[in-house]
Amino acid sequence: MHKIKQLIKAGVIGATGYAGAELVRLLMLHPNIIVEGLSSVTYEGQNISEVYPNLKGICDLKLDAAHDIIPRCDVIFASLPHGLSEEYAQLCSDAGKVFIDLGADFRLDDQMVYEKWYGVKHKYPTLHNKSVYSIPEFHRAAVAAADIIANPGCYPTGIALGLAPAIINKIVETDGIIIDSKSGVTGAGRGLSQNTHYPDTNEAFAAYKAGEHRHTPEIEQTLSKLAHTDLRVVFVPHLLPVNRGIESTIYCKMNGCIHFDDIYSAYETMYKNEPFVRLQKKGAYANIKNVRFSNYCDISLHTDAHTETLIICSVIDNMVKGAAGQAIQNMNIRFGFHETVGLLTVPPAF
Amino acid sequence: MHKIKQLIKAGVIGATGYAGAELVRLLMLHPNIIVEGLSSVTYEGQNISEVYPNLKGICDLKLDAAHDIIPRCDVIFASLPHGLSEEYAQLCSDAGKVFIDLGADFRLDDQMVYEKWYGVKHKYPTLHNKSVYSIPEFHRAAVAAADIIANPGCYPTGIALGLAPAIINKIVETDGIIIDSKSGVTGAGRGLSQNTHYPDTNEAFAAYKAGEHRHTPEIEQTLSKLAHTDLRVVFVPHLLPVNRGIESTIYCKMNGCIHFDDIYSAYETMYKNEPFVRLQKKGAYANIKNVRFSNYCDISLHTDAHTETLIICSVIDNMVKGAAGQAIQNMNIRFGFHETVGLLTVPPAF
Amino acid sequence: MHKIKQLIKAGVIGATGYAGAELVRLLMLHPNIIVEGLSSVTYEGQNISEVYPNLKGICDLKLDAAHDIIPRCDVIFASLPHGLSEEYAQLCSDAGKVFIDLGADFRLDDQMVYEKWYGVKHKYPTLHNKSVYSIPEFHRAAVAAADIIANPGCYPTGIALGLAPAIINKIVETDGIIIDSKSGVTGAGRGLSQNTHYPDTNEAFAAYKAGEHRHTPEIEQTLSKLAHTDLRVVFVPHLLPVNRGIESTIYCKMNGCIHFDDIYSAYETMYKNEPFVRLQKKGAYANIKNVRFSNYCDISLHTDAHTETLIICSVIDNMVKGAAGQAIQNMNIRFGFHETVGLLTVPPAF
Amino acid sequence: MHKIKQLIKAGVIGATGYAGAELVRLLMLHPNIIVEGLSSVTYEGQNISEVYPNLKGICDLKLDAAHDIIPRCDVIFASLPHGLSEEYAQLCSDAGKVFIDLGADFRLDDQMVYEKWYGVKHKYPTLHNKSVYSIPEFHRAAVAAADIIANPGCYPTGIALGLAPAIINKIVETDGIIIDSKSGVTGAGRGLSQNTHYPDTNEAFAAYKAGEHRHTPEIEQTLSKLAHTDLRVVFVPHLLPVNRGIESTIYCKMNGCIHFDDIYSAYETMYKNEPFVRLQKKGAYANIKNVRFSNYCDISLHTDAHTETLIICSVIDNMVKGAAGQAIQNMNIRFGFHETVGLLTVPPAF
Repeated sequence: MHKIKQLIKAGVIGATGYAGAELVRLLMLHPNIIVEGLSSVTYEGQNISEVYPNLKGICDLKLDAAHDIIPRCDVIFASLPHGLSEEYAQLCSDAGKVFIDLGADFRLDDQMVYEKWYGVKHKYPTLHNKSVYSIPEFHRAAVAAADIIANPGCYPTGIALGLAPAIINKIVETDGIIIDSKSGVTGAGRGLSQNTHYPDTNEAFAAYKAGEHRHTPEIEQTLSKLAHTDLRVVFVPHLLPVNRGIESTIYCKMNGCIHFDDIYSAYETMYKNEPFVRLQKKGAYANIKNVRFSNYCDISLHTDAHTETLIICSVIDNMVKGAAGQAIQNMNIRFGFHETVGLLTVPPAF
Repeated sequence: MHKIKQLIKAGVIGATGYAGAELVRLLMLHPNIIVEGLSSVTYEGQNISEVYPNLKGICDLKLDAAHDIIPRCDVIFASLPHGLSEEYAQLCSDAGKVFIDLGADFRLDDQMVYEKWYGVKHKYPTLHNKSVYSIPEFHRAAVAAADIIANPGCYPTGIALGLAPAIINKIVETDGIIIDSKSGVTGAGRGLSQNTHYPDTNEAFAAYKAGEHRHTPEIEQTLSKLAHTDLRVVFVPHLLPVNRGIESTIYCKMNGCIHFDDIYSAYETMYKNEPFVRLQKKGAYANIKNVRFSNYCDISLHTDAHTETLIICSVIDNMVKGAAGQAIQNMNIRFGFHETVGLLTVPPAF
Repeated sequence: MHKIKQLIKAGVIGATGYAGAELVRLLMLHPNIIVEGLSSVTYEGQNISEVYPNLKGICDLKLDAAHDIIPRCDVIFASLPHGLSEEYAQLCSDAGKVFIDLGADFRLDDQMVYEKWYGVKHKYPTLHNKSVYSIPEFHRAAVAAADIIANPGCYPTGIALGLAPAIINKIVETDGIIIDSKSGVTGAGRGLSQNTHYPDTNEAFAAYKAGEHRHTPEIEQTLSKLAHTDLRVVFVPHLLPVNRGIESTIYCKMNGCIHFDDIYSAYETMYKNEPFVRLQKKGAYANIKNVRFSNYCDISLHTDAHTETLIICSVIDNMVKGAAGQAIQNMNIRFGFHETVGLLTVPPAF
Repeated sequence: MHKIKQLIKAGVIGATGYAGAELVRLLMLHPNIIVEGLSSVTYEGQNISEVYPNLKGICDLKLDAAHDIIPRCDVIFASLPHGLSEEYAQLCSDAGKVFIDLGADFRLDDQMVYEKWYGVKHKYPTLHNKSVYSIPEFHRAAVAAADIIANPGCYPTGIALGLAPAIINKIVETDGIIIDSKSGVTGAGRGLSQNTHYPDTNEAFAAYKAGEHRHTPEIEQTLSKLAHTDLRVVFVPHLLPVNRGIESTIYCKMNGCIHFDDIYSAYETMYKNEPFVRLQKKGAYANIKNVRFSNYCDISLHTDAHTETLIICSVIDNMVKGAAGQAIQNMNIRFGFHETVGLLTVPPAF
């Protein structure tokens, strides 16, 4: 059993990437957290508010080396490119710290699958037995006892929340699920690329990595567990010219003739007590603008009767529920805080 | 046979709607056209360049009543809400003028289907026997002899061009086609609505009319003819925060195991002589930014091997190939001009 | 003297306009506030979260008539078109409620000036003797004792904060001040207009109401008081294609040869203890992106030596420091709360 | 006297920068031009349409080395960072080719001024005696006989066109001119920077290089010649989150009391025969959206009577009239084509 502390010290490794910066923003608002240390390889020695002037006067911490901040903290968040988190997980494990990884290293159970999609092997394979992958809505019990927490990818989060009630209640066939996702540009991170250069991105729209995105095995892993059978999905992401938000439109073949009201009820039942999932009223469409800057996942349901297709629209803020917010939600559970502490922001209307 | 005239006089009914204004812009660049008359109910008596200052010094025509411009023109384009074109088609037919309708009145063959989706009956049913629906790439022969031309809807154009080679060559199953489309905001027209108010649209994204959009029967009509069998599609449009452009990502079950190169070849073969269809090289993705302000349809092909799915990305400028440009392309064919005259603009890179 | 209550009940008249909706968002986060009643003429009887789905599950209050909510509240915020607030101010005054007006009715001291710019007369002239106009940084003492509080306009707020230290310290001449402001589209409100229709606003930029904007007399009134002399400014606003934020670039003739460091020090001195004013380090530029969704005003200073001009860049979020946030800041002072309570949000980096 | 050729061969050095790519786009539409060669250091050996897929099927030329294309062309356009054009100018001069420089090397008359602002010296000083700086509206005669043509900077073009009638007619004082400009992001070029990374630029707005932008001496040089006296201006550019367009709002002290109608007439008189300058009707505001993708400069005039200030709003497309279009306009004059050939595009309304 974990003792509930009133105040814990948090550190962020990779604090100047977009997910790291969003973590800092949200942690500053958390009543039980002291942001104790931030690290950055690129900007070590500078002040975080020089890199992110929005934080000026709010968080002016100096950026340290990762190794220096671990000993000072109770919980370490890492937001790093894949392949770089394991080492810090090991250090934290040795030092008895809770480690929450926003990267991909601990997301996939099967090392072969990880190697196939990421092109590298796990370096600390035994560590993975101790790690828990957690979308809190599905994995609360496990994450409460975990010391290495794998925070899910942005696309898989919204998609799993959108599909879970349909799969668990056998409303849809597990074959032939099509997922068409659109992500705001922060999803591509802070690193520069021609593809995210303003004049190339603005007034543009295209798919990318159709059938080849690394979130595909993570989506299939989560859904297969919910379905208790191996399933495969078609997953095509698109780059959307907005800063934040992911919308996934999901197409499933209905399992025979089910009344829409029954489908809707299954979703209502599953999510009625979830603080961060909001089922839209019938006829409304989930819109990314209603969840921006918040930890909500909004879901709307639609059917195409003439093809017996269930259409699920699921939206999240990719930086919050899809990254930093969900990481804090996991931390809250792990440390025995109420799951919503620090996350009850009100999404702006505009 | 139609005599080729060097110079013809064109009129636009509904010139101050978005499609009308785009027609004016493109017709001004056409070497064989004199823009003779423009009509608008809302702005009658004003100068078009007062409503659209971009046209100042380029086209400063006064906006007349529709009935006044028909007698002065050889060809009349109408860009009106559904239910309002038939009357003008009848007048043009009586007066021996060519009528090109950018609205929905003449798009659907089956009057019952029209009534079901549009909620009104055709008023001049016999007129519909004379009208020809034309995506020029498929209907060149017919449109060359037509005096009432139904210009296709924006979504159906890009979708039909994207799917035709796959359907005609039986590359994909005709069952279970899923079409996820995203349209720029000009697609909603010039009329004001909360949904297209800048702060509500900017940084927003959502689906709308899932399975209920009026372009659904038009898409099915075109594809069914190509397939020589009745087929049904799932069609879900989304509102995209850009001014122009439609991207459709189309998911089809492959008909057995077909090599990607053979699929690609089928598309190459079908479109190699088409001036306005550009098959993207393998690995590239069709992007709306490359077709904006032009009559091109760019298509890219992708397969998801692990689910045997063909993924087709098709992009057009909804105002050009999806409306005004295609109308001029149809006019060119009808009047014996080269199909590309006036349409060889170069899409800007940014 | 006012008794400090732990919890007060607040009502918003005009809750479905943009400033009203932003008030609701911010009030929900305020630990000392119970949002007791909301009114809307247009949407009376509906739930606020039907109009603003971002509030779903957070604030689902029914929209009442204005008259019904006043008796239930301790403080009433009104966000209404000019000419409509006075009546409610009178009702609140009679009932002993604090009234905070986000509209223009109580902003101008001189009734002749009000009439000249707004085209109507004050209906309750005696009420104006009791009202206090408050940019809290300048008017803390007065607002603490006021029962009718005039919340400043968005443009005047950022401009006055940007110019005050230069004027008070006689760094600049009071003649010839030029103010070039750019406002995000929420500044135009929720009402529909061609000018704020997405395709007309996106990828567009222009000035409007040059020398004729109604905030001009308010700016001059505030600056004249700071300068202890009547001054006139040139004020030209522009519509900026973003949702939120106002940037004002202010040009002043320096009063003789003053060293930049001395100017900078004067600003530092004046604002060093202000919780919501952040002077940018030398060489940096105030950017609207760093204050969005927050009550901050960021200011940067620049000089053009070869013309002896001081250039001041001032940015605020027009909906927060320029409207709802400042109203809450005023309320905090009036009710004896710490001025920053409920307003310590962290502006996001993206 | 130059012989008028029907068809000339053009080359572009630096064809993959933004101005270069825009030149290619516009030259493709020019009836008297054959695009003979394109060069790029970064992409040498690749096809231009691989770098710019919008050109696919329209211009698929291979990118060569600069030295290889000069001998094959009659006119060479160079779009390069400062300091790199002189060498090619010398080569062209030696080979008897016309050289049009879109860069800064030949814009400033005074070598000391060039060195002060650009930090390097001219390498071929004698070459500068032969070069002609040309905003065609002011320098037609000179450019017709020039073999080295300096194409003006984007900001200076719109500003000079906006101010010229006021200065020439002594409507305004030459002292104290304030220029507040806002440029779309293409003005920053194709090179990547944090400042033009989509999530950092979108929903952002700030000034940059206040009083320090390199276009300042060019603006002052042009205006001083028009005024026949040395004048100084305050020039502050801002980065505007749109792809294209520059708006400059210019503030001038009126020379005594002049009636607005007389000012307006002076502008009308000066520009009535200019094909690319459009004076807006009284009360209207020049908006970048009306000139995008075109060579127009739209100008609107406003006065602030209470401060005797003339406010001039001037808009251009920075890539066309501010770069590639104006370069072609200069070429047309130099080669004896009608000045408007290839440039009569119609700016789109949206």
